[in-house]
Amino acid sequence: MIPGAPRVGPRMKIDIWSDIACPWCYIGKRRLETALADHPQRDEIEVIWHSYQLDPTLPEHYDGTEIDYLASRKGMPHAQVRQMFGHVTEQAAGEGLSYDFDQLVVANSARAHELLHLAKERGVADAVKESLLSGHFEHGMDIGDVDALVRVGVDAGLDEGEIRSALEDGRYKAAVAADIDMARQIGVTGVPFVVVDMKYGVSGAQPPEVFRQAIDTALAERAPAIQVVDGAADADACGPDGCAI
Amino acid sequence: MIPGAPRVGPRMKIDIWSDIACPWCYIGKRRLETALADHPQRDEIEVIWHSYQLDPTLPEHYDGTEIDYLASRKGMPHAQVRQMFGHVTEQAAGEGLSYDFDQLVVANSARAHELLHLAKERGVADAVKESLLSGHFEHGMDIGDVDALVRVGVDAGLDEGEIRSALEDGRYKAAVAADIDMARQIGVTGVPFVVVDMKYGVSGAQPPEVFRQAIDTALAERAPAIQVVDGAADADACGPDGCAI
Repeated sequence: MIPGAPRVGPRMKIDIWSDIACPWCYIGKRRLETALADHPQRDEIEVIWHSYQLDPTLPEHYDGTEIDYLASRKGMPHAQVRQMFGHVTEQAAGEGLSYDFDQLVVANSARAHELLHLAKERGVADAVKESLLSGHFEHGMDIGDVDALVRVGVDAGLDEGEIRSALEDGRYKAAVAADIDMARQIGVTGVPFVVVDMKYGVSGAQPPEVFRQAIDTALAERAPAIQVVDGAADADACGPDGCAI
Repeated sequence: MIPGAPRVGPRMKIDIWSDIACPWCYIGKRRLETALADHPQRDEIEVIWHSYQLDPTLPEHYDGTEIDYLASRKGMPHAQVRQMFGHVTEQAAGEGLSYDFDQLVVANSARAHELLHLAKERGVADAVKESLLSGHFEHGMDIGDVDALVRVGVDAGLDEGEIRSALEDGRYKAAVAADIDMARQIGVTGVPFVVVDMKYGVSGAQPPEVFRQAIDTALAERAPAIQVVDGAADADACGPDGCAI
Protein backbone atom coordinates (compact mmCIF):
# COMPACT_ATOMS: atom_id res chain seq x y z
CA MET A 1 0.00 0.00 0.00
CA ILE A 2 1.35 3.39 -0.88
CA PRO A 3 0.99 5.36 2.34
CA GLY A 4 -1.53 8.12 2.14
CA ALA A 5 -2.39 7.40 -1.47
CA PRO A 6 -5.80 8.82 -2.25
CA ARG A 7 -8.23 7.04 -4.49
CA VAL A 8 -7.55 8.50 -7.93
CA GLY A 9 -9.60 6.14 -10.07
CA PRO A 10 -12.69 7.14 -11.98
CA ARG A 11 -15.89 7.93 -10.11
CA MET A 12 -18.20 5.02 -9.38
CA LYS A 13 -20.92 4.75 -11.99
CA ILE A 14 -24.62 4.21 -11.48
CA ASP A 15 -26.16 3.20 -14.80
CA ILE A 16 -29.94 3.50 -15.06
CA TRP A 17 -32.05 1.99 -17.80
CA SER A 18 -35.39 3.70 -17.87
CA ASP A 19 -38.19 4.71 -20.22
CA ILE A 20 -40.22 7.90 -20.11
CA ALA A 21 -43.60 6.25 -20.57
CA CYS A 22 -42.98 4.26 -17.39
CA PRO A 23 -44.73 5.31 -14.18
CA TRP A 24 -42.37 3.35 -11.91
CA CYS A 25 -39.33 4.94 -13.56
CA TYR A 26 -40.20 8.40 -12.26
CA ILE A 27 -40.98 7.02 -8.80
CA GLY A 28 -37.72 5.04 -8.90
CA LYS A 29 -35.82 8.18 -9.93
CA ARG A 30 -37.07 9.97 -6.79
CA ARG A 31 -36.21 7.03 -4.55
CA LEU A 32 -32.68 6.80 -5.96
CA GLU A 33 -32.32 10.55 -5.51
CA THR A 34 -33.32 10.15 -1.87
CA ALA A 35 -30.66 7.45 -1.48
CA LEU A 36 -28.05 9.76 -3.00
CA ALA A 37 -29.17 13.09 -1.56
CA ASP A 38 -27.13 13.17 1.63
CA HIS A 39 -24.63 10.46 0.75
CA PRO A 40 -21.20 11.43 2.10
CA GLN A 41 -19.53 10.09 -1.06
CA ARG A 42 -22.00 11.70 -3.50
CA ASP A 43 -19.12 13.44 -5.29
CA GLU A 44 -17.52 10.10 -6.11
CA ILE A 45 -20.65 8.85 -7.85
CA GLU A 46 -21.72 9.51 -11.43
CA VAL A 47 -25.29 8.80 -12.56
CA ILE A 48 -25.72 7.79 -16.20
CA TRP A 49 -29.10 7.58 -17.91
CA HIS A 50 -29.67 4.91 -20.54
CA SER A 51 -32.56 4.58 -22.94
CA TYR A 52 -35.08 1.77 -22.78
CA GLN A 53 -38.38 1.41 -24.59
CA LEU A 54 -41.09 -0.65 -22.96
CA ASP A 55 -43.30 -0.48 -26.03
CA PRO A 56 -41.49 0.46 -29.25
CA THR A 57 -44.72 -0.29 -31.15
CA LEU A 58 -46.58 2.62 -29.58
CA PRO A 59 -47.92 4.98 -32.22
CA GLU A 60 -46.23 8.40 -32.51
CA HIS A 61 -49.54 9.92 -31.54
CA TYR A 62 -52.66 8.22 -30.21
CA ASP A 63 -55.94 9.99 -29.99
CA GLY A 64 -57.44 8.12 -27.03
CA THR A 65 -56.51 8.28 -23.37
CA GLU A 66 -53.95 6.07 -21.64
CA ILE A 67 -56.91 4.21 -20.15
CA ASP A 68 -58.33 3.58 -23.63
CA TYR A 69 -54.96 2.44 -24.88
CA LEU A 70 -54.26 0.00 -22.05
CA ALA A 71 -57.84 -1.28 -21.96
CA SER A 72 -57.79 -2.04 -25.67
CA ARG A 73 -54.25 -3.40 -25.68
CA LYS A 74 -54.71 -5.68 -22.70
CA GLY A 75 -58.44 -6.32 -23.05
CA MET A 76 -59.15 -5.06 -19.54
CA PRO A 77 -62.26 -3.20 -18.34
CA HIS A 78 -61.77 0.57 -18.05
CA ALA A 79 -62.66 0.45 -14.35
CA GLN A 80 -59.84 -1.99 -13.63
CA VAL A 81 -57.28 0.14 -15.48
CA ARG A 82 -58.52 3.18 -13.56
CA GLN A 83 -58.05 1.32 -10.28
CA MET A 84 -54.45 0.40 -11.26
CA PHE A 85 -53.72 4.02 -12.06
CA GLY A 86 -55.10 5.01 -8.68
CA HIS A 87 -52.54 2.80 -6.96
CA VAL A 88 -49.62 4.16 -8.98
CA THR A 89 -50.84 7.72 -8.46
CA GLU A 90 -50.84 7.13 -4.70
CA GLN A 91 -47.30 5.73 -4.73
CA ALA A 92 -46.19 8.68 -6.85
CA ALA A 93 -47.84 11.09 -4.40
CA GLY A 94 -45.76 9.46 -1.65
CA GLU A 95 -42.71 10.72 -3.54
CA GLY A 96 -44.15 14.19 -4.04
CA LEU A 97 -45.25 13.58 -7.65
CA SER A 98 -48.70 14.57 -8.99
CA TYR A 99 -49.53 12.00 -11.65
CA ASP A 100 -52.45 12.98 -13.84
CA PHE A 101 -53.49 10.01 -15.97
CA ASP A 102 -56.51 11.85 -17.35
CA GLN A 103 -54.29 14.44 -18.99
CA LEU A 104 -51.59 11.95 -20.04
CA VAL A 105 -50.83 11.90 -23.77
CA VAL A 106 -50.05 8.45 -25.16
CA ALA A 107 -47.00 8.73 -27.40
CA ASN A 108 -43.95 6.81 -28.52
CA SER A 109 -40.88 7.77 -26.49
CA ALA A 110 -38.28 7.18 -29.24
CA ARG A 111 -37.77 10.84 -30.12
CA ALA A 112 -37.61 11.87 -26.47
CA HIS A 113 -34.80 9.35 -25.99
CA GLU A 114 -32.92 10.94 -28.89
CA LEU A 115 -33.21 14.29 -27.12
CA LEU A 116 -31.90 12.64 -23.95
CA HIS A 117 -28.76 11.51 -25.77
CA LEU A 118 -28.09 15.02 -27.02
CA ALA A 119 -28.62 16.23 -23.44
CA LYS A 120 -26.19 13.58 -22.18
CA GLU A 121 -23.49 14.83 -24.53
CA ARG A 122 -24.04 18.35 -23.20
CA GLY A 123 -24.06 17.28 -19.54
CA VAL A 124 -27.73 18.05 -18.88
CA ALA A 125 -29.26 14.57 -19.12
CA ASP A 126 -30.66 14.61 -15.61
CA ALA A 127 -32.49 17.92 -16.07
CA VAL A 128 -34.00 16.77 -19.39
CA LYS A 129 -35.00 13.37 -18.00
CA GLU A 130 -36.71 15.10 -15.10
CA SER A 131 -38.62 17.50 -17.40
CA LEU A 132 -39.72 14.69 -19.69
CA LEU A 133 -41.03 12.53 -16.84
CA SER A 134 -42.73 15.46 -15.17
CA GLY A 135 -44.19 16.67 -18.46
CA HIS A 136 -45.49 13.22 -19.34
CA PHE A 137 -47.00 12.20 -16.00
CA GLU A 138 -47.87 15.51 -14.37
CA HIS A 139 -48.58 17.99 -17.16
CA GLY A 140 -50.05 16.17 -20.15
CA MET A 141 -47.05 16.94 -22.35
CA ASP A 142 -46.86 15.10 -25.68
CA ILE A 143 -43.37 13.54 -25.58
CA GLY A 144 -43.65 12.65 -29.27
CA ASP A 145 -44.08 16.28 -30.29
CA VAL A 146 -40.95 18.00 -31.61
CA ASP A 147 -41.93 21.47 -30.40
CA ALA A 148 -42.59 20.17 -26.89
CA LEU A 149 -39.20 18.41 -26.91
CA VAL A 150 -37.52 21.60 -28.11
CA ARG A 151 -39.02 23.52 -25.19
CA VAL A 152 -37.72 20.90 -22.73
CA GLY A 153 -34.25 21.01 -24.29
CA VAL A 154 -34.04 24.80 -24.46
CA ASP A 155 -35.14 25.05 -20.82
CA ALA A 156 -32.18 22.82 -19.95
CA GLY A 157 -29.80 25.07 -21.87
CA LEU A 158 -29.58 23.23 -25.19
CA ASP A 159 -29.51 25.07 -28.49
CA GLU A 160 -32.85 25.09 -30.33
CA GLY A 161 -31.27 24.72 -33.77
CA GLU A 162 -29.17 21.79 -32.64
CA ILE A 163 -32.17 20.04 -31.08
CA ARG A 164 -34.24 20.44 -34.23
CA SER A 165 -31.51 19.25 -36.57
CA ALA A 166 -30.65 16.30 -34.31
CA LEU A 167 -34.27 15.16 -34.18
CA GLU A 168 -34.57 15.76 -37.93
CA ASP A 169 -31.53 13.77 -39.03
CA GLY A 170 -31.84 11.11 -36.36
CA ARG A 171 -28.17 11.28 -35.36
CA TYR A 172 -28.94 9.82 -31.90
CA LYS A 173 -31.05 6.88 -33.08
CA ALA A 174 -27.98 4.63 -33.00
CA ALA A 175 -27.17 5.69 -29.41
CA VAL A 176 -30.73 4.88 -28.30
CA ALA A 177 -30.52 1.49 -30.01
CA ALA A 178 -27.13 0.80 -28.40
CA ASP A 179 -28.54 1.46 -24.93
CA ILE A 180 -31.45 -0.89 -25.54
CA ASP A 181 -29.08 -3.50 -26.92
CA MET A 182 -26.87 -3.22 -23.85
CA ALA A 183 -29.94 -3.71 -21.63
CA ARG A 184 -30.73 -6.86 -23.59
CA GLN A 185 -27.17 -8.11 -23.14
CA ILE A 186 -27.35 -7.51 -19.39
CA GLY A 187 -30.65 -9.32 -19.27
CA VAL A 188 -32.89 -6.41 -18.33
CA THR A 189 -36.57 -7.24 -18.90
CA GLY A 190 -38.20 -4.44 -16.95
CA VAL A 191 -37.44 -0.89 -15.89
CA PRO A 192 -36.32 1.03 -13.99
CA PHE A 193 -33.18 -1.08 -13.77
CA VAL A 194 -30.26 0.41 -11.87
CA VAL A 195 -26.75 -1.03 -12.07
CA VAL A 196 -24.26 0.08 -9.42
CA ASP A 197 -20.58 -0.01 -10.42
CA MET A 198 -21.46 -2.54 -13.16
CA LYS A 199 -21.69 -4.98 -10.31
CA TYR A 200 -25.02 -4.82 -8.49
CA GLY A 201 -28.38 -4.63 -10.20
CA VAL A 202 -31.45 -3.13 -8.57
CA SER A 203 -34.65 -4.01 -10.39
CA GLY A 204 -37.72 -1.80 -10.08
CA ALA A 205 -38.61 1.25 -8.02
CA GLN A 206 -37.05 -0.07 -4.81
CA PRO A 207 -37.19 1.85 -1.55
CA PRO A 208 -34.25 4.27 -1.01
CA GLU A 209 -32.69 1.87 1.55
CA VAL A 210 -32.22 -0.82 -1.09
CA PHE A 211 -30.46 1.62 -3.44
CA ARG A 212 -28.42 2.93 -0.55
CA GLN A 213 -27.28 -0.52 0.49
CA ALA A 214 -26.22 -1.50 -3.03
CA ILE A 215 -24.31 1.79 -3.36
CA ASP A 216 -22.59 1.41 0.01
CA THR A 217 -21.63 -2.20 -0.68
CA ALA A 218 -20.16 -1.32 -4.05
CA LEU A 219 -18.28 1.67 -2.61
CA ALA A 220 -16.87 -0.43 0.22
CA GLU A 221 -15.67 -3.06 -2.21
CA ARG A 222 -13.70 -0.60 -4.27
CA ALA A 223 -10.00 -0.74 -3.51
CA PRO A 224 -9.24 2.04 -1.02
CA ALA A 225 -5.85 2.74 -2.61
CA ILE A 226 -3.33 1.15 -4.88
CA GLN A 227 -1.50 -1.75 -3.31
CA VAL A 228 2.02 -2.44 -4.53
CA VAL A 229 2.36 -6.14 -5.23
CA ASP A 230 4.76 -8.32 -3.28
CA GLY A 231 8.18 -8.90 -4.72
CA ALA A 232 8.08 -5.55 -6.42
CA ALA A 233 10.34 -3.86 -3.87
CA ASP A 234 13.69 -4.58 -5.50
CA ALA A 235 12.72 -4.04 -9.09
CA ASP A 236 14.94 -2.19 -11.50
CA ALA A 237 13.53 1.29 -11.90
CA CYS A 238 14.64 4.82 -12.51
CA GLY A 239 14.00 7.56 -9.98
CA PRO A 240 14.95 11.18 -9.45
CA ASP A 241 18.42 10.08 -8.31
CA GLY A 242 19.06 7.90 -11.32
CA CYS A 243 18.43 4.35 -12.38
CA ALA A 244 18.83 1.29 -10.17
CA ILE A 245 21.65 -0.70 -11.67
CA MET B 1 -27.13 -13.11 -10.83
CA ILE B 2 -28.76 -12.56 -14.20
CA PRO B 3 -28.35 -15.92 -15.95
CA GLY B 4 -26.00 -15.85 -18.88
CA ALA B 5 -25.28 -12.16 -18.48
CA PRO B 6 -21.97 -11.32 -20.09
CA ARG B 7 -19.61 -8.83 -18.56
CA VAL B 8 -20.52 -5.55 -20.21
CA GLY B 9 -18.51 -3.20 -18.06
CA PRO B 10 -15.56 -1.23 -19.33
CA ARG B 11 -12.32 -3.03 -20.11
CA MET B 12 -9.82 -3.43 -17.28
CA LYS B 13 -7.26 -0.68 -17.41
CA ILE B 14 -3.51 -0.95 -17.06
CA ASP B 15 -2.08 2.51 -16.42
CA ILE B 16 1.65 2.94 -16.99
CA TRP B 17 3.68 5.88 -15.84
CA SER B 18 6.90 5.99 -17.79
CA ASP B 19 9.51 8.36 -19.16
CA ILE B 20 11.31 8.08 -22.48
CA ALA B 21 14.76 8.86 -21.09
CA CYS B 22 14.44 5.83 -18.81
CA PRO B 23 16.29 2.65 -19.71
CA TRP B 24 14.21 0.43 -17.41
CA CYS B 25 10.98 1.78 -18.93
CA TYR B 26 11.69 0.23 -22.33
CA ILE B 27 12.75 -3.06 -20.73
CA GLY B 28 9.63 -2.96 -18.55
CA LYS B 29 7.48 -2.30 -21.62
CA ARG B 30 8.78 -5.49 -23.24
CA ARG B 31 8.23 -7.53 -20.07
CA LEU B 32 4.67 -6.27 -19.71
CA GLU B 33 4.08 -7.04 -23.39
CA THR B 34 5.32 -10.58 -22.76
CA ALA B 35 2.87 -10.90 -19.88
CA LEU B 36 0.03 -9.70 -22.12
CA ALA B 37 1.03 -11.34 -25.41
CA ASP B 38 -0.83 -14.63 -25.13
CA HIS B 39 -3.20 -13.65 -22.32
CA PRO B 40 -6.61 -15.25 -22.94
CA GLN B 41 -8.37 -12.07 -21.76
CA ARG B 42 -6.14 -9.67 -23.71
CA ASP B 43 -9.19 -8.15 -25.41
CA GLU B 44 -10.64 -7.13 -22.06
CA ILE B 45 -7.53 -5.15 -21.14
CA GLU B 46 -6.70 -1.59 -22.14
CA VAL B 47 -3.17 -0.22 -21.76
CA ILE B 48 -2.90 3.51 -21.07
CA TRP B 49 0.40 5.39 -21.22
CA HIS B 50 0.98 8.26 -18.81
CA SER B 51 3.75 10.81 -18.87
CA TYR B 52 6.44 11.01 -16.24
CA GLN B 53 9.64 13.01 -16.24
CA LEU B 54 12.57 11.69 -14.26
CA ASP B 55 14.58 14.83 -14.83
CA PRO B 56 12.54 17.88 -15.88
CA THR B 57 15.70 19.98 -15.53
CA LEU B 58 17.45 18.25 -18.44
CA PRO B 59 18.48 20.77 -21.08
CA GLU B 60 16.55 20.69 -24.35
CA HIS B 61 19.81 19.76 -26.04
CA TYR B 62 23.11 18.72 -24.45
CA ASP B 63 26.28 18.50 -26.44
CA GLY B 64 28.07 15.80 -24.43
CA THR B 65 27.33 12.09 -24.23
CA GLU B 66 25.02 10.43 -21.73
CA ILE B 67 28.16 9.25 -19.94
CA ASP B 68 29.43 12.84 -19.69
CA TYR B 69 26.06 14.00 -18.43
CA LEU B 70 25.69 11.34 -15.73
CA ALA B 71 29.35 11.55 -14.69
CA SER B 72 29.11 15.30 -14.23
CA ARG B 73 25.65 15.26 -12.66
CA LYS B 74 26.42 12.50 -10.19
CA GLY B 75 30.16 13.09 -9.81
CA MET B 76 30.99 9.53 -10.83
CA PRO B 77 34.04 8.34 -12.78
CA HIS B 78 33.38 7.72 -16.48
CA ALA B 79 34.45 4.09 -16.10
CA GLN B 80 31.83 3.44 -13.45
CA VAL B 81 29.04 4.98 -15.52
CA ARG B 82 30.18 2.88 -18.48
CA GLN B 83 30.04 -0.27 -16.33
CA MET B 84 26.47 0.58 -15.27
CA PHE B 85 25.47 1.07 -18.87
CA GLY B 86 26.98 -2.32 -19.67
CA HIS B 87 24.67 -3.97 -17.17
CA VAL B 88 21.54 -2.21 -18.48
CA THR B 89 22.56 -2.99 -22.07
CA GLU B 90 22.82 -6.66 -21.17
CA GLN B 91 19.37 -6.68 -19.55
CA ALA B 92 17.95 -4.87 -22.57
CA ALA B 93 19.57 -7.43 -24.90
CA GLY B 94 17.78 -10.13 -22.92
CA GLU B 95 14.54 -8.51 -24.11
CA GLY B 96 15.73 -8.24 -27.70
CA LEU B 97 16.66 -4.55 -27.45
CA SER B 98 19.95 -3.12 -28.77
CA TYR B 99 20.79 -0.21 -26.50
CA ASP B 100 23.53 2.03 -27.85
CA PHE B 101 24.63 4.45 -25.15
CA ASP B 102 27.45 5.82 -27.29
CA GLN B 103 24.97 7.14 -29.84
CA LEU B 104 22.38 8.26 -27.27
CA VAL B 105 21.41 11.93 -27.47
CA VAL B 106 20.78 13.57 -24.10
CA ALA B 107 17.59 15.62 -24.33
CA ASN B 108 14.62 16.74 -22.30
CA SER B 109 11.61 14.48 -22.91
CA ALA B 110 8.90 17.12 -22.36
CA ARG B 111 8.12 17.68 -26.03
CA ALA B 112 8.09 13.95 -26.75
CA HIS B 113 5.49 13.55 -24.02
CA GLU B 114 3.35 16.20 -25.68
CA LEU B 115 3.53 14.19 -28.91
CA LEU B 116 2.49 11.10 -26.92
CA HIS B 117 -0.66 12.84 -25.74
CA LEU B 118 -1.61 13.77 -29.29
CA ALA B 119 -0.96 10.13 -30.25
CA LYS B 120 -3.14 8.97 -27.35
CA GLU B 121 -6.04 11.08 -28.60
CA ARG B 122 -5.65 9.50 -32.01
CA GLY B 123 -5.36 5.93 -30.67
CA VAL B 124 -1.70 5.39 -31.62
CA ALA B 125 0.03 6.00 -28.27
CA ASP B 126 1.62 2.57 -28.13
CA ALA B 127 3.21 2.85 -31.58
CA VAL B 128 4.59 6.32 -30.81
CA LYS B 129 5.87 5.28 -27.39
CA GLU B 130 7.64 2.32 -28.99
CA SER B 131 9.25 4.52 -31.68
CA LEU B 132 10.40 7.08 -29.15
CA LEU B 133 12.01 4.50 -26.87
CA SER B 134 13.61 2.66 -29.76
CA GLY B 135 14.80 5.90 -31.33
CA HIS B 136 16.25 7.14 -28.04
CA PHE B 137 18.01 3.98 -26.88
CA GLU B 138 18.77 2.12 -30.10
CA HIS B 139 19.15 4.72 -32.84
CA GLY B 140 20.58 7.92 -31.38
CA MET B 141 17.42 9.89 -32.09
CA ASP B 142 17.14 13.36 -30.53
CA ILE B 143 13.77 13.21 -28.74
CA GLY B 144 13.91 16.98 -28.17
CA ASP B 145 14.05 17.71 -31.90
CA VAL B 146 10.75 18.72 -33.49
CA ASP B 147 11.57 17.28 -36.93
CA ALA B 148 12.50 13.93 -35.38
CA LEU B 149 9.24 13.91 -33.41
CA VAL B 150 7.29 14.78 -36.57
CA ARG B 151 8.83 11.77 -38.34
CA VAL B 152 7.84 9.48 -35.45
CA GLY B 153 4.30 10.85 -35.44
CA VAL B 154 3.83 10.70 -39.21
CA ASP B 155 5.12 7.10 -39.26
CA ALA B 156 2.38 6.28 -36.76
CA GLY B 157 -0.27 7.88 -38.99
CA LEU B 158 -0.55 11.32 -37.42
CA ASP B 159 -0.93 14.45 -39.50
CA GLU B 160 2.30 16.47 -39.89
CA GLY B 161 0.54 19.83 -39.70
CA GLU B 162 -1.31 18.84 -36.56
CA ILE B 163 1.88 17.58 -34.88
CA ARG B 164 3.74 20.80 -35.67
CA SER B 165 0.96 23.07 -34.51
CA ALA B 166 0.42 21.03 -31.33
CA LEU B 167 4.12 21.19 -30.43
CA GLU B 168 4.17 24.88 -31.34
CA ASP B 169 1.18 26.00 -29.26
CA GLY B 170 1.81 23.56 -26.40
CA ARG B 171 -1.79 22.38 -26.25
CA TYR B 172 -0.72 19.11 -24.56
CA LYS B 173 1.51 20.64 -21.88
CA ALA B 174 -1.40 20.58 -19.43
CA ALA B 175 -2.07 16.89 -20.13
CA VAL B 176 1.59 16.03 -19.48
CA ALA B 177 1.51 18.00 -16.23
CA ALA B 178 -1.75 16.29 -15.19
CA ASP B 179 -0.18 12.85 -15.66
CA ILE B 180 2.83 13.79 -13.58
CA ASP B 181 0.56 15.27 -10.93
CA MET B 182 -1.49 12.08 -10.81
CA ALA B 183 1.72 10.06 -10.35
CA ARG B 184 2.61 12.32 -7.44
CA GLN B 185 -0.86 11.78 -5.91
CA ILE B 186 -0.51 8.02 -6.21
CA GLY B 187 2.91 8.20 -4.61
CA VAL B 188 5.02 7.15 -7.60
CA THR B 189 8.69 7.98 -7.05
CA GLY B 190 10.25 5.89 -9.81
CA VAL B 191 9.31 4.52 -13.19
CA PRO B 192 8.20 2.38 -14.88
CA PHE B 193 5.22 2.19 -12.55
CA VAL B 194 2.34 0.02 -13.68
CA VAL B 195 -1.10 0.17 -12.04
CA VAL B 196 -3.49 -2.67 -12.76
CA ASP B 197 -7.22 -1.84 -12.53
CA MET B 198 -6.35 1.14 -10.27
CA LYS B 199 -5.79 -1.50 -7.63
CA TYR B 200 -2.38 -3.16 -7.85
CA GLY B 201 0.86 -1.31 -8.40
CA VAL B 202 3.92 -2.90 -9.97
CA SER B 203 7.06 -0.86 -9.45
CA GLY B 204 9.99 -1.20 -11.84
CA ALA B 205 10.81 -3.47 -14.77
CA GLN B 206 9.51 -6.62 -13.10
CA PRO B 207 9.71 -10.02 -14.75
CA PRO B 208 6.66 -10.89 -16.90
CA GLU B 209 5.40 -13.33 -14.24
CA VAL B 210 4.95 -10.51 -11.74
CA PHE B 211 2.91 -8.45 -14.22
CA ARG B 212 0.96 -11.54 -15.18
CA GLN B 213 0.10 -12.34 -11.59
CA ALA B 214 -1.10 -8.83 -10.81
CA ILE B 215 -3.22 -8.86 -13.99
CA ASP B 216 -4.73 -12.26 -13.24
CA THR B 217 -5.50 -11.33 -9.64
CA ALA B 218 -7.21 -8.12 -10.68
CA LEU B 219 -9.19 -9.88 -13.43
CA ALA B 220 -10.31 -12.60 -11.04
CA GLU B 221 -11.49 -10.02 -8.54
CA ARG B 222 -13.71 -8.26 -11.04
CA ALA B 223 -17.36 -9.21 -10.69
CA PRO B 224 -18.12 -11.86 -13.31
CA ALA B 225 -21.55 -10.42 -14.06
CA ILE B 226 -24.12 -8.11 -12.58
CA GLN B 227 -25.69 -9.52 -9.48
CA VAL B 228 -29.25 -8.48 -8.70
CA VAL B 229 -29.43 -7.50 -5.05
CA ASP B 230 -31.61 -9.42 -2.60
CA GLY B 231 -35.07 -8.16 -1.95
CA ALA B 232 -35.29 -6.75 -5.43
CA ALA B 233 -37.46 -9.57 -6.77
CA ASP B 234 -40.86 -8.08 -6.02
CA ALA B 235 -40.13 -4.50 -6.89
CA ASP B 236 -42.58 -2.36 -8.80
CA ALA B 237 -41.38 -2.18 -12.36
CA CYS B 238 -42.69 -1.93 -15.88
CA GLY B 239 -42.01 -4.64 -18.44
CA PRO B 240 -43.11 -5.55 -21.96
CA ASP B 241 -46.44 -6.79 -20.57
CA GLY B 242 -47.16 -3.67 -18.61
CA CYS B 243 -46.43 -2.28 -15.19
CA ALA B 244 -46.55 -4.24 -11.94
CA ILE B 245 -49.34 -2.72 -9.92
